[in-house]
Amino acid sequence: MKKWSASRAPAGRIAYVDGRYLPHGQASVHIEDRGVQFADAVYEAFNIVGGRMLDREEHLDRLERSLRELEMGMPMGRAALALVMAELLRRNRVQDGLLYLQVSRGAMRRDHPIPDDPPRPTLILTARSIAPALLAAKYRDGVKAITAPDQRWARRDIKTTQLLPNLLARTKAKRAGALEAVLVDDDGFVTEGAVTSFWMVDQGGNIVTRDLSHAILPGVTRRVILEAAAEAQVSVIERKFTAAEAKAGREAFLSSASGAAVPVVAIDGVKIGDGQPGPVTRRIRELYARKAGSRS
Amino acid sequence: MKKWSASRAPAGRIAYVDGRYLPHGQASVHIEDRGVQFADAVYEAFNIVGGRMLDREEHLDRLERSLRELEMGMPMGRAALALVMAELLRRNRVQDGLLYLQVSRGAMRRDHPIPDDPPRPTLILTARSIAPALLAAKYRDGVKAITAPDQRWARRDIKTTQLLPNLLARTKAKRAGALEAVLVDDDGFVTEGAVTSFWMVDQGGNIVTRDLSHAILPGVTRRVILEAAAEAQVSVIERKFTAAEAKAGREAFLSSASGAAVPVVAIDGVKIGDGQPGPVTRRIRELYARKAGSRS
Repeated sequence: MKKWSASRAPAGRIAYVDGRYLPHGQASVHIEDRGVQFADAVYEAFNIVGGRMLDREEHLDRLERSLRELEMGMPMGRAALALVMAELLRRNRVQDGLLYLQVSRGAMRRDHPIPDDPPRPTLILTARSIAPALLAAKYRDGVKAITAPDQRWARRDIKTTQLLPNLLARTKAKRAGALEAVLVDDDGFVTEGAVTSFWMVDQGGNIVTRDLSHAILPGVTRRVILEAAAEAQVSVIERKFTAAEAKAGREAFLSSASGAAVPVVAIDGVKIGDGQPGPVTRRIRELYARKAGSRS
Repeated sequence: MKKWSASRAPAGRIAYVDGRYLPHGQASVHIEDRGVQFADAVYEAFNIVGGRMLDREEHLDRLERSLRELEMGMPMGRAALALVMAELLRRNRVQDGLLYLQVSRGAMRRDHPIPDDPPRPTLILTARSIAPALLAAKYRDGVKAITAPDQRWARRDIKTTQLLPNLLARTKAKRAGALEAVLVDDDGFVTEGAVTSFWMVDQGGNIVTRDLSHAILPGVTRRVILEAAAEAQVSVIERKFTAAEAKAGREAFLSSASGAAVPVVAIDGVKIGDGQPGPVTRRIRELYARKAGSRS
């Protein structure tokens, strides 16, 4: 695990904070930024493939929705933001990797309510390369998951930095030898993965994923998969389902910006189907890739 | 509302971050601090009265509990921390005010699970003066509250920086001309205030407050009030109650580090008792003051 303090930066990385490109190790925010003290902040992560940002407009749409729900402003216009993101990728020489964007309500004297006269929002951008082979291995071998109680707040449809329950669930998964935690609500229904959308394929071959509500994040990759599936006349059912149903299914997969249709081969140690990545998952990944590629 | 950017500091204020005393406007944390990106952080606020920190040891006990629940380490020993806090108060010339303390899991490359080899925790301390007259006015006149759904995560007993639901509820209160939001869980029971513990006095004169569980924060001032009340043979019942019960009560009050037994004179526009601060609230405040004073 790579670690650093402000004085020991990863060599060469550049971040963007509030109008300035900075060496990564020197990039900071004020201690009274509301993102620091209240998690009064939202974020997006963009997948970069071959130098292209996948689903950029869809992510920016969701960013604007998150900001609107919390009465926060865009830190700059969309066109300018797109230019800054492209410049950051260039400066970090990222061909394949991830761009992270965070907007907080800004720095001011600590006081809970949304201020009538808000400060300037704080914009943070970072970018880093990730070897494509890492994702390719997940597609090839599949990943394991566990189930865990969904302990998040009531508005999971807003992509905020309140990620403590998510990281605790991911920790539990990691310690159980798995990658992802499939979260289960108080009524026994699966909501989604801790940092992914979750999909199952039942014994009839139907693809099922949780319907949108305040209970789950409106996943960008989820949405593009749904569109791609509809265009290919592959039906997807959006409804509640239990972890038991998922474990009894033929296939299961995860989607997120950093991986469309990653096969889940076991949940809580229970093999899904024959315990191998399945054909429906592969087909969905191909449909997504074609759809995302067609809009480049 | 006072606002600033990194270049426009409030004159003279000093903060403490990671081993250094810094001008407030220059005090910052790295953008990949886990407190910034994951709300992977806990905090405490200490009330300063006449140069003394009230309930210091009780707050540090709770800090250690919060850290333990999240598998985080203390950033320094307790005795050293007490010295730094005292020095910060001295440098900021705070006789009456608030000391804020935050500990996050530290800065490292963004990755959700708790790292096996964690970075050094990040410690933030700020202090500021608050005119005692502000609190005195609340004690004299009482404050108004509204009710709002409790939208927080499942582990409200840990004092984390995931304060977005709290600040949204406080915003709703402010816009309704009130100070505090009394939070109501999915079963219709009051949990606590958005940033305070909540207490009611029923028509029989019994003091009632929610019993401890994962549903509420174990308030330090709440605990000291309970001890003080017990010593004075004033009985307090810890149990669930509804907002309707609270509205039908004789008195209601709030407690937090920044105010013990602040009278609530109206909830959702409904007068509590005769709409004036009541004798039980005043008595509790006196018992608290004596108890907190006796340990200086």
